[in-house]
Parts: sequence; C-alpha cells; structure tokens
Amino acid sequence: MQNLEQLLEDIKNKKATNPLYESLPAEIPVTGEGINRRQEFLQRKTNSDFSFLTGQKRFSELSQLEGNIENYIGMSMIPTGVIGPLCILGSAAKGAFFVPLATTEGSLLASYHRGAKACYLAGGATSVCLIEGVQRSPLFKFDNLGNLGTFLVWILGQIETFQNITEATSRYAKLTDMKSNIEGNHLILTFEYHTGDASGQNMVTICTNAICQYIIQNAPVQPLFWFIEGNYSGDKKATSQAFANVRGKKVTTEITLPGKIIHEVLKTTPEAMDEYWRSSTIGTIQSGSIGAQGHYANGLTALFIATGQDVACVSEASVGITRMELTQEGGLYASVTLPNLIVGTVGGGTSLPTQKECLELMDCYGEGKARKFAEICGALVLAGEISIAAALSAGQFSAAHQKFGRKK
Amino acid sequence: MQNLEQLLEDIKNKKATNPLYESLPAEIPVTGEGINRRQEFLQRKTNSDFSFLTGQKRFSELSQLEGNIENYIGMSMIPTGVIGPLCILGSAAKGAFFVPLATTEGSLLASYHRGAKACYLAGGATSVCLIEGVQRSPLFKFDNLGNLGTFLVWILGQIETFQNITEATSRYAKLTDMKSNIEGNHLILTFEYHTGDASGQNMVTICTNAICQYIIQNAPVQPLFWFIEGNYSGDKKATSQAFANVRGKKVTTEITLPGKIIHEVLKTTPEAMDEYWRSSTIGTIQSGSIGAQGHYANGLTALFIATGQDVACVSEASVGITRMELTQEGGLYASVTLPNLIVGTVGGGTSLPTQKECLELMDCYGEGKARKFAEICGALVLAGEISIAAALSAGQFSAAHQKFGRKK
Amino acid sequence: MQNLEQLLEDIKNKKATNPLYESLPAEIPVTGEGINRRQEFLQRKTNSDFSFLTGQKRFSELSQLEGNIENYIGMSMIPTGVIGPLCILGSAAKGAFFVPLATTEGSLLASYHRGAKACYLAGGATSVCLIEGVQRSPLFKFDNLGNLGTFLVWILGQIETFQNITEATSRYAKLTDMKSNIEGNHLILTFEYHTGDASGQNMVTICTNAICQYIIQNAPVQPLFWFIEGNYSGDKKATSQAFANVRGKKVTTEITLPGKIIHEVLKTTPEAMDEYWRSSTIGTIQSGSIGAQGHYANGLTALFIATGQDVACVSEASVGITRMELTQEGGLYASVTLPNLIVGTVGGGTSLPTQKECLELMDCYGEGKARKFAEICGALVLAGEISIAAALSAGQFSAAHQKFGRKK
Amino acid sequence: MQNLEQLLEDIKNKKATNPLYESLPAEIPVTGEGINRRQEFLQRKTNSDFSFLTGQKRFSELSQLEGNIENYIGMSMIPTGVIGPLCILGSAAKGAFFVPLATTEGSLLASYHRGAKACYLAGGATSVCLIEGVQRSPLFKFDNLGNLGTFLVWILGQIETFQNITEATSRYAKLTDMKSNIEGNHLILTFEYHTGDASGQNMVTICTNAICQYIIQNAPVQPLFWFIEGNYSGDKKATSQAFANVRGKKVTTEITLPGKIIHEVLKTTPEAMDEYWRSSTIGTIQSGSIGAQGHYANGLTALFIATGQDVACVSEASVGITRMELTQEGGLYASVTLPNLIVGTVGGGTSLPTQKECLELMDCYGEGKARKFAEICGALVLAGEISIAAALSAGQFSAAHQKFGRKK
Repeated sequence: MQNLEQLLEDIKNKKATNPLYESLPAEIPVTGEGINRRQEFLQRKTNSDFSFLTGQKRFSELSQLEGNIENYIGMSMIPTGVIGPLCILGSAAKGAFFVPLATTEGSLLASYHRGAKACYLAGGATSVCLIEGVQRSPLFKFDNLGNLGTFLVWILGQIETFQNITEATSRYAKLTDMKSNIEGNHLILTFEYHTGDASGQNMVTICTNAICQYIIQNAPVQPLFWFIEGNYSGDKKATSQAFANVRGKKVTTEITLPGKIIHEVLKTTPEAMDEYWRSSTIGTIQSGSIGAQGHYANGLTALFIATGQDVACVSEASVGITRMELTQEGGLYASVTLPNLIVGTVGGGTSLPTQKECLELMDCYGEGKARKFAEICGALVLAGEISIAAALSAGQFSAAHQKFGRKK
Repeated sequence: MQNLEQLLEDIKNKKATNPLYESLPAEIPVTGEGINRRQEFLQRKTNSDFSFLTGQKRFSELSQLEGNIENYIGMSMIPTGVIGPLCILGSAAKGAFFVPLATTEGSLLASYHRGAKACYLAGGATSVCLIEGVQRSPLFKFDNLGNLGTFLVWILGQIETFQNITEATSRYAKLTDMKSNIEGNHLILTFEYHTGDASGQNMVTICTNAICQYIIQNAPVQPLFWFIEGNYSGDKKATSQAFANVRGKKVTTEITLPGKIIHEVLKTTPEAMDEYWRSSTIGTIQSGSIGAQGHYANGLTALFIATGQDVACVSEASVGITRMELTQEGGLYASVTLPNLIVGTVGGGTSLPTQKECLELMDCYGEGKARKFAEICGALVLAGEISIAAALSAGQFSAAHQKFGRKK
Repeated sequence: MQNLEQLLEDIKNKKATNPLYESLPAEIPVTGEGINRRQEFLQRKTNSDFSFLTGQKRFSELSQLEGNIENYIGMSMIPTGVIGPLCILGSAAKGAFFVPLATTEGSLLASYHRGAKACYLAGGATSVCLIEGVQRSPLFKFDNLGNLGTFLVWILGQIETFQNITEATSRYAKLTDMKSNIEGNHLILTFEYHTGDASGQNMVTICTNAICQYIIQNAPVQPLFWFIEGNYSGDKKATSQAFANVRGKKVTTEITLPGKIIHEVLKTTPEAMDEYWRSSTIGTIQSGSIGAQGHYANGLTALFIATGQDVACVSEASVGITRMELTQEGGLYASVTLPNLIVGTVGGGTSLPTQKECLELMDCYGEGKARKFAEICGALVLAGEISIAAALSAGQFSAAHQKFGRKK
Repeated sequence: MQNLEQLLEDIKNKKATNPLYESLPAEIPVTGEGINRRQEFLQRKTNSDFSFLTGQKRFSELSQLEGNIENYIGMSMIPTGVIGPLCILGSAAKGAFFVPLATTEGSLLASYHRGAKACYLAGGATSVCLIEGVQRSPLFKFDNLGNLGTFLVWILGQIETFQNITEATSRYAKLTDMKSNIEGNHLILTFEYHTGDASGQNMVTICTNAICQYIIQNAPVQPLFWFIEGNYSGDKKATSQAFANVRGKKVTTEITLPGKIIHEVLKTTPEAMDEYWRSSTIGTIQSGSIGAQGHYANGLTALFIATGQDVACVSEASVGITRMELTQEGGLYASVTLPNLIVGTVGGGTSLPTQKECLELMDCYGEGKARKFAEICGALVLAGEISIAAALSAGQFSAAHQKFGRKK
C-alpha cells in the first residue's frame, strides 16, 4: 500500500525532462561494425551476454528442448535487433530498457525505436499492470434445465474445495474467481486463476481438469457431456469478452508528449496526430475490429518471438485501445490499454538459449518478473502507436506541401 | 477452365483410400538419432537441404538482412520440427507435404501431426484458394458533404487512370477494385489489389500512395486532411470486414473422416466430435469472437515463423470458421475457411537462410507458389482443428470411464 | 430454496403431455365475428376487460399522460391481436398465457401462434429468469493515471456509502455491484442495481447521479471531466458486454418437441430443423451479429408496443442465442437465451389504458410481476424461433418435392 | 446529374442563418389547450388532417387490416406528439418538417425537439440518402466443394436470367447485385435489390424464391439442402456486415453548430460536447457495440411506430456512427451515418389510419417518398444525438459549479 501511494505520487509528479540516457547506436543498414558497437554498448549498459544470439555459442543440449517441440529437425533463425532506451515508470518496471525484437519486417524496429526515443525525451511512459487472470471454461451439458440447476446449486457450495484442489495441484496457481453462464441446457463455468510468473495456460488446464474430475465424481447429477474448454475463454483468438475483462495481464500505459518533441523527433504536429487518431478510430470502428488500435501486433509479435512467449497468443494480445488527444498545453496525450497480455518469464520457451538472453537483456528472466515484462510490453506498444500515428499524419503534410507549392 | 473442371471432378471423385505415403519418423522426446532419421527421410523424400536449420552452415552475409531488420544484434533461434505427410487436393497444392513448424509450445506439433495423419489416411483434404485481394484504405476528410461529393464524383471517373498508375508503379500489383465509403465528411476509398506471390502490404502501400499523389494533384477540390490508411483495411488486426470479404487469400478446406479413422487415430467418435463442435461453437459465439474457430493461430504462427512470413499478420489470419458434422454414413465432415491469409513466397523474410529452406521443403519458394502455400495453410489448420476437437471431445470419455467404473 | 428445489423437480419431471387448454379462436382474415369470439373467449378465460382496446371506452384523462409524452397531439393506433395459449413452467410464470401483440406486419401473429401451439402440445416450455441487473456507467477523466489511482483507491472504500445513498434515493433500487474499468486516464465505474418491477433506466440514472454528486463533493482528487454515462452500459444498443452479462433480466427457455408434433403442427421434420439451425447459425456468425438468433425482435417489439415497454430497448433485448438439436428419441431440443430483457410491469407506459389491459390479460400488471413477464418474453421468443426455423426448413422440402416430382 | 451538381453546390453554400420558421407550440405538461394549439398550428402549416389521431374519426373498416394482423382484438393506443421544425437540405427532403413520434417514454420528444431547434437555428442539417439495397441470402449445402463449384460456375452465368425473373415477379423490385460466399460445402448467394418505395423485405423474399425455384429446376447439380435465407442478410438484427454495407437505405447527415447556439439552446459548450463525444466513443468501443452511436433507437422507434414501419427493424436501423468535433471557428461539427434504414412509404402499415396521417404530416405518404423519409430519419437522429450529448456534457458543468461553489 505504501508502495502504491509512492507510485501514484511518482506518476503525478512526473515531469517531461530530458533524461541523460545514452542512446543505443542505431542504424538502418546492417554492418558488422554496427553490430559490434551495439553489442559492446548493451554489454556495458546491461551486463548481458549474447553468445547464443551472436552465434558464438552453439546450441547442443537437446534435452533442453523437452516440452518445447516434437519432430525436431533444427533451429529457425530470426533476425533480432534492439530498440531503446524505452523509459518506463511502472509498478514493477522502472527505468530504461533495451528491448529485443525478432522479425523479418523491415522498418519495424526503426519505427518502434523512434517512438521510444520520443517517449524517453518526454520523461518516459507510465505503465501499470492493473489486474491479472487466466481462465479455463469447461462446458457441461445436461438433459434439461432442472438437472443443470441441481448441479449448479451444488457447485456453488464447492468453491473452497476447488481452491484446495488448485493448491494441491499446482505450487503457483491460485483460483481467484468462478463464474457461471447458463444457456439452455449448457452450463459454462469460468475458472480464473493467478498463475505467478508463468503465462499459465497449461497450469490452468491441469488445475481445471483436477477440479472437473472432482466435480464429475461427486456431483449429485451427471452431465450428458462435458469438455474441459467450451471455447469460451478466449484462448488463441480475439474476443470481446477477454477484451472487456482480462486475459493474462491487463496493462495501461500513458505519456504526454510536448509539441517540441513531436516536431523534432516525429516530424509532425500534435494537431495532425490528434486528427489522425480521431479519423482513424472511426475507420477502425467501421472495420468491425474488437477494440481500436493501430499495430500492436507488430511489436508484440517481435518481442514474443525473441523472448520465448507463446507467439500464437498475439491473436488475443494484439487487442486493445489506443487514445490520443491534444492537451491544454499544446502537447499530445497518448495511451494504450492491453487487457490480454498472456506472457510469462518462467516456463514455455523462456529458458531456451537466445530467448533467455533476450529476457536477461531486460532483467526479465525468471520468477518475480512477469508483471515487469507486461509493463514493458505496454510501453513498447505505446512507442509503436505513437510512431505509426506520426508517420501517417505526416503524410498529410507532404501532400499539403505539394498542394500549396504547386502552380495552379 | 479446363483445369477448373478437372479439379471439380477430382474433388467429387475423391475417395477415402489409405494412400501408401511413408510416414515421417515422428517422436516426442528429442534425440540426435531421431533428428538424423527425420533429416535423412526428408532429404530422400523432398530432395531438400537443411544446412542452415541444422547449423551445419552458418549465416554470415549481413547484406542479406537489408530490408528485414534494423539495429541488428544476432539471430533468435526457434526450435523447428516437421509434421506430415499432409495430403492435399487443391487448385495449386497437390500431393503430400511435410510442413515445418517453429514453436516453443510443447505438444503443438504432436497434435497437428496426429490431425494430418487422420487426414492422409482419409485420402487427404480438399483445399482451394477461392479469391485474393490486399487492400489499402486512404481516408479523406472534407469541410462538408458538398465538397466530398464533388471529389467523389471526380474520383469515380478515374479508375482507369488509377489502374495505369498501379501498372507504372509495380510490376506485380494489379488494381482489381475500388470501393467508396462515406461517413459524414469522411470518405474512405478502399483500393484492392492482386499482389502476385508477395504478401503485398508494402506493394499496395506504394501503389496507393502513387494514386493518392495523383488525386491530390488533380482533384477539383482538396480534402482538409488525408491519410494513406484510415485504419480500415484490417492490417494487423481481426476485423469483421476482412473476415467477411478477403484479405490476402481466402482458402476453404474440407475432409470427410470415416468413423474407423476417428476411432483408431483420434481415439474418439464422430458423435463426440460433433457434440463438441456444436457446444463449443455456441461457447465461441458467447465469447464474442469474430468467426468461430478453435486454434488456427497455433499452426499458422509456427508455420509463419518458419517460413519468413509477416508473423504479426496472425492477428488477422487466425480468423475463420470451423465446421464439423456427422455424415449419413457415420463419418465426420469437417471444414475450415480462412479468408485472411496474408502470405507470400517471395519478398519479406522468405529468402533468409532457414526460411528459404523451410519453404523449399514444401516446394513453396519463389514465384508461382503463393496460392499453393495458402492451400497448405488451409490443410494444416484443418488438421489442427480436427486434432484439438478430438482431444477435447475424448476428455468426456475418460470422465465417463471414471464415472461408470467407480463404486457408488 | 424450497421453491427452487420444487421448481427443479418440476422441470425434470415435465412430460410432453397434450394439455387440454382450450385453443384461442384464431383466424387470418379479420372479421367482426372473429373479434367477438376472441373477446368473449378471453374474457371467459382470463376475466379481462378490453374496453379501451376495442374502442368502447375512449381515452380522456390527459393527466395520465404526464411523464409519457411531450408536444402531444393524439394517439397512434396499432393493430393488436393475441396468440396462445403459451404454456410455461417457470419460476414466476406458470400456466397458460394469452399474449397480446401489436404490429402491422402480416403473418407475425400467425407464426408465433403456430409456435405456441407446438409448445403447448409438447407440454409447455421451461422458462427461467436467471439473474437481474440494470447498469449505469459514469466515466471520469483525469490528468493522469496517478490521480485516477488515488481517486479509485478512495472509491473502493465507499461501496457501503453508495448503497446507503441508493437506499435513500429510491424505494426500489438496490445497488448490487460496482465494477471499475481503467483505460489510460479514463475510469468507468459500472453501478449495477436491482430495480424491482420497473425496467429501471430512470431509477438507476437518479441513483447513480446521487452517488456521483457525493463522489464529486468528497473525493480526494477531482476529475477533469465526468459524465453520468460513458456510453458503456449498453443502453439502446446491441453490445457484446450486455450480451455476455445481463442487462435487465436474463431468461433462458427450453423445450423438447416430439417428432410427431413437428410433423403435424410445423409441417417439417426434426432433422430438417436441425440442419437449418446448424447452417443458419454459421450464416449468422458470418454476418457478424452479436449472439445468434433468428427474429427475436419481431415478437418482442409487438409485445413491447402492446404492453407499454420502452420499445427502443428492442435494440438490446433482441440479442441472444437460439439453439436446436436432435434428441436421442428423434425429437428436437430447442432453447433461447435472452440476457438483455429491459422490461417492467410498473412505471413507463404500463398504466396507460390499452397497455394496462394488455398486461392484465397475462396477469402481469403491477408489482411482483416483472420476472413473470420476462419469463413470458422468453417463451414467446422460443415459439417464434421454432416457427420460423420450421418454415425455413420446410422450404427445402417443397423444393425437394419439385425436384423429385419433375421429369428429367 | 444536374440535380446532383446543384445539390452539392447548395450543400457547400449552406450558411448558418436563423430561418424564420414559426416554432411549434411546444409544451411539457399535456393540456387540452396545448393540443388544440398544436393541431391548429400543424393544420395551418402542413394542411394535414389528424381526425384519427385525435379520435374524432373512429376506425371501422376491418378489411383495411388484411395483411397487417391476425387474431385481431383491437387497437393499442400509443401517445403521439410532434417535434419540429426539423430543417433539412437533402436530395429528396428539402425544407422544414414536423415529425410525429409515438412513445411512452417521457422527455424523449422534449430532447429531440431541443436538438431540432438547435439545428434549425443553425440553418438546418444536410441529409443525403447515399445508396439503397435490400438483401436475401439463400444458403445451399452440397456433398462437397466439387459439386458446389459446378453449381456456382453455372449460377454465375445466369445473372441476366435472374434479373428477368425478378422483373416478371415484381413491378418494383430490381435485382442490382449478386454475391457469393463459400464456406466449406456451404454456398450463400446474396441477392440485392432496389425495392422502390417499399421497405421491401417481402418483395425480396418473393423474388428470391422465384429465382431459387428456377435454380433448383435447372442447375446441373442439386444441393443436399437449401434455405431461402441463411440468416446472413441481417434481417431483424444488428450485424457488422449490414453496418459496413447497406441494408435498406444508407443516409448520412451533418451539421455545423455555432458556439452561440450551443450555449443558448443546448446550455453547454462545443468543447464539452467534443470531450463527451471522444470519451463516450471510447466507452462504446469498450462495450463491444457495432458502430458507435448514442440513442438512435429512441427517435427511430417512435417514428417507426407512428408511421407504420416494421418497428422490429429498429434492431438493425439503430446501428451507425455519430461523430462530433470542434471546428476551427469554435463551433461543433456533428454527423450521423445510418446504413441500415429499412423504411417505406408504401405497403406495410403505412396506409392504416393514424399511420397515414403521420406520414402525410411530413408529405411522406405513397410513391416517390421513401428516400425523402429516410433523409428525415437521418436528420431526426442527428437532432437526438446532439441533444443527448449536450445533456450529458452539461452534467459535468453542474458538477463543476458545485465543486467551485462549495466551501472547503
């Protein structure tokens, strides 16, 4: 609580100062010299080792792949770069981060790097992990509503037992909520868990299965059918429900950019970005998207590949809300909100060679780091939204120049 | 047309025969011996080379990375395996394919491999690329509807000019359609293109920019603002509009699985899968998803990473419709429809070392291969949907065994 | 609880018997004689009076219109008929109901009447009001997340005070829940209430305003702006959130129709209806609807007009899920689920002359009747879904007859 | 074309002048005197007769109800008032209109009347019916994609025949488009028609049935099943597809309100309305609505009831986009876009006694009036959106007054 108050004060008092972080030696063309300069810089700044990323060390311990792959034949190599410093004031992420991104899409890193630069010149982004929860939603089907009702009445008296089963099944999972949803003779129970620093999908499946086994063995009436997942929890897809609640971690990130920085770094104006945001948000609504954002998927995918996340979860993680508006002082307020960050810093692919190196570059490897990683995701995405909105809004100006500069 | 008729006849006459494809030496634990067996098998079957995947060859030509990455520091290594044979009867993909998947999620390949096995024992899947199109949607804002109207009336007379501009701008792009959408003083023009064998997002941006420059220079009235993209085309997000039309390539894939194969390979029954599909589709509708599918993202993400696709496009590509139902003969009809496959076999990351090897494994590298690749995507996704539906429906049976086997 | 157990037993033991309710004298052409027969029948059965509906009594007390209309010039006359008996087994609605519907759309009543007939021959529908809640969602905007956080921490300690304010403001409203939703510097608080037998939108606005006034006067930090409704509660629109939770009353209604009744009353087969449901549900998903249903709006609109409901709420009330499937015994299980029934039996237009007569026809006028009315809504909608699915599936048969009957 | 150019010029040259329309004698309490004053005023202004609305004439010709109702027992009476003048510059609606609204919701008319007043003081709204189309979407199911393909290839060659069938079936319907949508072995054909001045749902059903009968009799392969509607056309439900295209008529309406009028009539500021719009649009996006609007349903429902429209179509008609923003001159630009106006001025309930009177009040009864009526719908809805946004934004000010006025 003390911490929360301190954090809230820090956020209120944040000033747009120009911090003196040294900038990463960036470059568009790829040169051996540039690679060396960046590696030297990052090793100095973060005390990191990239022996696997650079190819100095070669992967050989096949046993490490256990639980990650079947029918293995080798390693796909994905070009990986770094952006930053990404400056963050969060509940867990505090300070300047250099963020590794693995992609084959040219200009992606340049764009995020530019957004990050605007943010750190403006004093950094506030990024807060608000809530957490991973769900499994078993579906039970009955003969009729009468049997469903008898079953549900019994279920509602078992929550404590379900929590005990969860504790007995997993060291990390905590059952935090159970919701019921009736549709005719279908009952969907949504179990929501805290999953510690793991992304948690396997953990919640195992715990929910243990709970369901108990249910089936003890319930006063049996369902006709039941499935451990009724395709309701939002796994591997964009859904309105996960968007409106939480799936994994919900992060919101904000910044106020002074007009000067927008002019100098982003080569546009706060007014143009505001116009772009308003018009393009209406465009997004018309496209029938869930939420309204620009290109969350670009940054998240590249970060997820680099750090051993479940990359397919980009389907749900790339849903959220971006907002931009002029401030009274002539700057631009910008925020992103990502309610579906299924991420982890333990388990999954996080301990594989290059993945671990990439997590360590941000001091995000292992226990106690998942909220921090989620807050970095928010700040990364904010940088990307700012940069693309600037690029799209500036196009207007080039047109305006042509317009006003040409003879009639 | 001849080809189309032949294809339609082939589809009608497809019989569930047990083809004599030799099966890939699959394995769950990763062993050096297993790796060698698979590599030897694949080289024999597909005449492929995996020197980069296996690490025998090392990447050194930095110039190859031009246009793929900035601020490069090294290569992320993603474990890569193979499933198959995936047997396909399509307009471009015909025969048996071994499909490379890069992931860190355990059991993913095992599940897709199992689904592929059920499909090839059933004679293979029909997979057809139906339509193609990549869009850019510039937005123009005016003082009022009057100016917008004057502008639009002029625009509607320029389509041929726009096609000429497209031809002059790109060797591959063809402008196939232009739609207008008025909302107050906003006009969104959606330009739709064929982009050959490239995924095409950059191509359509460049062409649309050329068209817009022409518009701004020649239109009888000027917009107050315009942006090359009004966030309407569905780039990097799941949208109802792209789902209902096409974005990239639209593929539909179907198979009929005899009950015997479902029993033997999938360890469940057609009835249980049918029940699961029906109930879980209702679950999906309640979750507020776009379309209704299980886990397209898992297979697509792994394939996209392995083959140098724009992986962030999984956001939109993982939207579609899965359908399953009992047949009169007691088997199971299953289909998947993917309207948003943004994929390519040239450009992007396709020519990078391991990516090229992975594409060549399926004879999908280079020009003339994109439709083929899209049809493989459809068949892969179908295999995954069948396998997960089987797994989830069979859980019910294990529960039933407990139920009927225990004392009361 | 006793009641609940009894209800559950009743539902389980429901048998498809042919109850001996006397059928309403139905007719397609409108004749004076038919009108008289129906009025006589209804008066006998329900002891109702229709003097205003029939025009025998004329409306003259203008003061009754206070709070219902401004700039009044007269009365629109909407043709009104009756369907039924609609037989219901519910938690509040039990027995046979004759349901008044006001519409100008020909065949609407005939279709619902037919569906009701099938249901009562099958022993009636089970219809249960599961949960209740009406929401207001004020939005507060702050300088930054720090101020928002301080505000929210304070708010979370005031729930009891908010409940007291609610009690002091309204005799009927009970504050049952408060949820918070953070998006950048926006905070939306969703207050959920029970509103007794009123539809409750005004009630929750007044209570929420009283709460907000208290907040603004006592909160430790002030928002930059706030609005009593952030357009988040789903008022007068179909939304995924209201669909997934509850808005007003959530009702689910089910029935199992024996094949014999489907043949004789609905002139189709359970198999054809099952096919239609499956295919058309996929059609609905592709149309991008919220939920999946046929034509809830037809019956609800006509009932809402007749009974003085807020007819504009059809926007949200007409969202839900219809499900149909074959039973093991060769019948058809059908259910509807309506989570957004904003209805009341007091207040609004319920006490106006013809509206009160229509409510009294179902013994649904006044206090203690709202859940009953909601359960009737569910059964009405179920009758309509069954009838339209039968009509659409039978079309196939007429086609099949042509097909098999014609020369080749 | 001449007309279009003239209209575009008129729109461009529209000035915010204070037209000298005489204002309707408005009142909140309902008094006999007030009723007389309004009736006298309206008769004078519009030369209309309200004998049925006022109850002077009594309905007796039962034969008039043929095709509107079954099981008739009498007339529901819905209180009806008038707002206006609503000043419109449109392609078909030009001038000042007094709009009848039937409702039991207090303050509804007062709110729309206030919005209309702001609009007419600002010179009236531009309201344009952009496009038209009503759809039917039969669904055909086949054994496999091969048969579907053969069928579709044949269908694509029959468009002209389908147009001839349409002409032979209906005097008014014109088949304007046919689209095909393949999903596995499902084919949905969407036939789009112009339906003259009728709302057209029955017309398009009859024509599509005639086309389908031809198809079934002549197609080279037969479907397993087909249904005249695959629940894809958006009938009686909010859908993303109808929202993004057109269903019935698509209208967009705009106005620019000077700050002075906003202050004097709406008791708020352009800045507050702009803030409200921005924040509440984000609220709407988070609620998971289709489109983003405030309360279209309120005005449309009341107008539809009064004028004999198919009121259940409010489900789809109440979907659209509202936009508001500050102008350079310190005023407020506001627009509404309604793509799903299923309305008619012939057929349905339009010729019933009070319904006809209400249509005639706006000179909207009969042939050649449907586009005009749709443009009035747009302007009505705009008035309502302006009024509610003003009311909600002004709440902030009353709070601010309390805040700044109270002792600390």
